[in-house]
Amino acid sequence: MAGTGSTTLRPAGADDAPAIARLLVDFNNEFDASAPPVDELTVRVAELLRGGDTVIALAGEPPCGLAAMRFRTSIWTPREECYLAELYVAPGERGRGIGRALLTYALELARARGADYVDLNTAETDTAARALYESMGFSSTEHKPGGPVNIYYEREL
Amino acid sequence: MAGTGSTTLRPAGADDAPAIARLLVDFNNEFDASAPPVDELTVRVAELLRGGDTVIALAGEPPCGLAAMRFRTSIWTPREECYLAELYVAPGERGRGIGRALLTYALELARARGADYVDLNTAETDTAARALYESMGFSSTEHKPGGPVNIYYEREL
Repeated sequence: MAGTGSTTLRPAGADDAPAIARLLVDFNNEFDASAPPVDELTVRVAELLRGGDTVIALAGEPPCGLAAMRFRTSIWTPREECYLAELYVAPGERGRGIGRALLTYALELARARGADYVDLNTAETDTAARALYESMGFSSTEHKPGGPVNIYYEREL
Repeated sequence: MAGTGSTTLRPAGADDAPAIARLLVDFNNEFDASAPPVDELTVRVAELLRGGDTVIALAGEPPCGLAAMRFRTSIWTPREECYLAELYVAPGERGRGIGRALLTYALELARARGADYVDLNTAETDTAARALYESMGFSSTEHKPGGPVNIYYEREL
């Protein structure tokens, strides 16, 4: 367990699945994205945490923020790569550095697990998130300053 | 096995690891990215193909193009999500529609496996790749035309 001021930081256990599902649904509701029911998501989050490829860092007791990471063996190196799938702090808790503390802690957990690479995506208009990522060493130009920005694409199947 | 004109399309087996490693190294060399030695990458590709979370579609005999996909259980739905990690056609084979055929075939393999979502990233200056992805239903704006573009960030750990 680690702290940022009075905010504790810790990896989630299976007992945290309901609180995580609640935060994830709040996250999607805030951004007008559809989300599954909390009960359904609770079951899935518990399965993911048991499955071994998912680590979720939590801030606060009860949790008011999370960083959800997915791991897999890399193609290009013998180690794991980490995808930061979700980073969320509840609206009433923002502005106190919890997002930065969560991200810092998440990268520590990823390093401790042996990952050597992390990626994520965010909207070009989310200037707060982009400033946070860029101040913490993330690059959108393949580590070549001034190079072309990498664009994230998605589709349903 | 499927065809695009005279080009066969098929999923890779473990015996294809050397050819895949060679194509991946050529890919990285073309874009001035560092790559591991072919022999080392061959071993890892074979492990990934055995591991179950990796499917690689191949075009041509011997293979002149590949689409490398990684799968994992989704957070938001009960199904799998697919990451198109690499899409490559050897320089001498471009301009014949092999990239589009490979991508179409890769999406079919992902659907057949049960995935309901696919994502990828590419450089904003790679207009050929972006036109291909956009013509095949990929969105960089969360399926909201006119919305903010999603930016892909990465860093080493």
